[in-house]
Amino acid sequence: MNFQSCFPIWHQLTDDQRERIYGSLINRSVQKGTVLHGGGDCTGLLLVRSGQLRAYILSEEGREVTIYRLFDRDLCLLSASCIMRSIQFDITVEAEKDTDLWMIPAEVYRRIMTESAPLSNYTNEIMAARFSEVMWLVEQIMWKSMDRRVAAFLLEEAAIEDAELLRLTHETIANHLGTHREVVTRMLRYFQDEGMVRLARGSVELLDKKRLEALRDT
Amino acid sequence: MNFQSCFPIWHQLTDDQRERIYGSLINRSVQKGTVLHGGGDCTGLLLVRSGQLRAYILSEEGREVTIYRLFDRDLCLLSASCIMRSIQFDITVEAEKDTDLWMIPAEVYRRIMTESAPLSNYTNEIMAARFSEVMWLVEQIMWKSMDRRVAAFLLEEAAIEDAELLRLTHETIANHLGTHREVVTRMLRYFQDEGMVRLARGSVELLDKKRLEALRDT
Repeated sequence: MNFQSCFPIWHQLTDDQRERIYGSLINRSVQKGTVLHGGGDCTGLLLVRSGQLRAYILSEEGREVTIYRLFDRDLCLLSASCIMRSIQFDITVEAEKDTDLWMIPAEVYRRIMTESAPLSNYTNEIMAARFSEVMWLVEQIMWKSMDRRVAAFLLEEAAIEDAELLRLTHETIANHLGTHREVVTRMLRYFQDEGMVRLARGSVELLDKKRLEALRDT
Repeated sequence: MNFQSCFPIWHQLTDDQRERIYGSLINRSVQKGTVLHGGGDCTGLLLVRSGQLRAYILSEEGREVTIYRLFDRDLCLLSASCIMRSIQFDITVEAEKDTDLWMIPAEVYRRIMTESAPLSNYTNEIMAARFSEVMWLVEQIMWKSMDRRVAAFLLEEAAIEDAELLRLTHETIANHLGTHREVVTRMLRYFQDEGMVRLARGSVELLDKKRLEALRDT
């Protein structure tokens, strides 16, 4: 998989613009757990070649909540927040799996964006997609109780991994959902008592997806 | 105040583009309480000439939470969500005060955006600004307790109105914050017992802003 095929508007750029992007690309391979971006830096745009990234925000007390995840061919804009004056928040980006990616320097991208309507419109679409994910999150945390959010998270993980046996600690789940480990442990024990999951050290096995789905969709 | 002076990139558009926007503008004057946009329509972009709008989301049960507010010269993009495929959520926009505004038809704007890098980049900045407001909201609802959110809301209202005596029902405050009226009533009574506010039918008077600020900032 080459860069051009992962960048949908490549054919709408001029030769000069392509050269500037292509000539400044940085290849990176990072291990699971690597923090790629954080602390208000302007790291650059991250285009996932293969792997999985997680973008989250941190509270002053160190609590986390996942705001979106990125998979193959997804582009992370918010790791290059200096491309737009109006982005007034910081995220952290971490590799959830071993990941190969391309990094586009923020300044190169920003300059081409000012001259290219196609690149600017593409950027708009990416931002709107992330914005939509955050709005979904707002609806979840405003209107959904924690049992439904844990059920939704387990089902999402099972879909991503295409597996029923998930290697996940209660701490990890809590960090995705922005809650405390104890809350997740209590919920998972309740799910286990109800026969929906089986718990073991470092793993959660989904036994009854139908009921988890019914819970999520109530 | 004319349209051109409220549209910061006016001088970066071509004569033809200006004519298409100017020729399609719709002037509207609405009373406080008018719902300008809702139900998944693609109403058009709303540019506030004078007045105040509120954008909020609704739960299935009819609960509300304010996601941002718009004042003089602010542009509402999300009332024209069809300008971008990737906007996958619906908001409702209501006049919080009597408001004069211009409406730009979504299709006119969208077409010019595809050809004009300045308009597309301007749109990006507006979207990033709204996105930032929603991220602020996420942080509030994730990490801040309701007493601090009520204090922050009262102080914001006092700043907008430039007044200590606020004409607000408990229901209105609850709808801004996405909670139940009873929760707000309990919190305001506590504030009153502590001497921070004085309550009367349909109003809240701020008596001790310093302490409300201290509470907000804890």
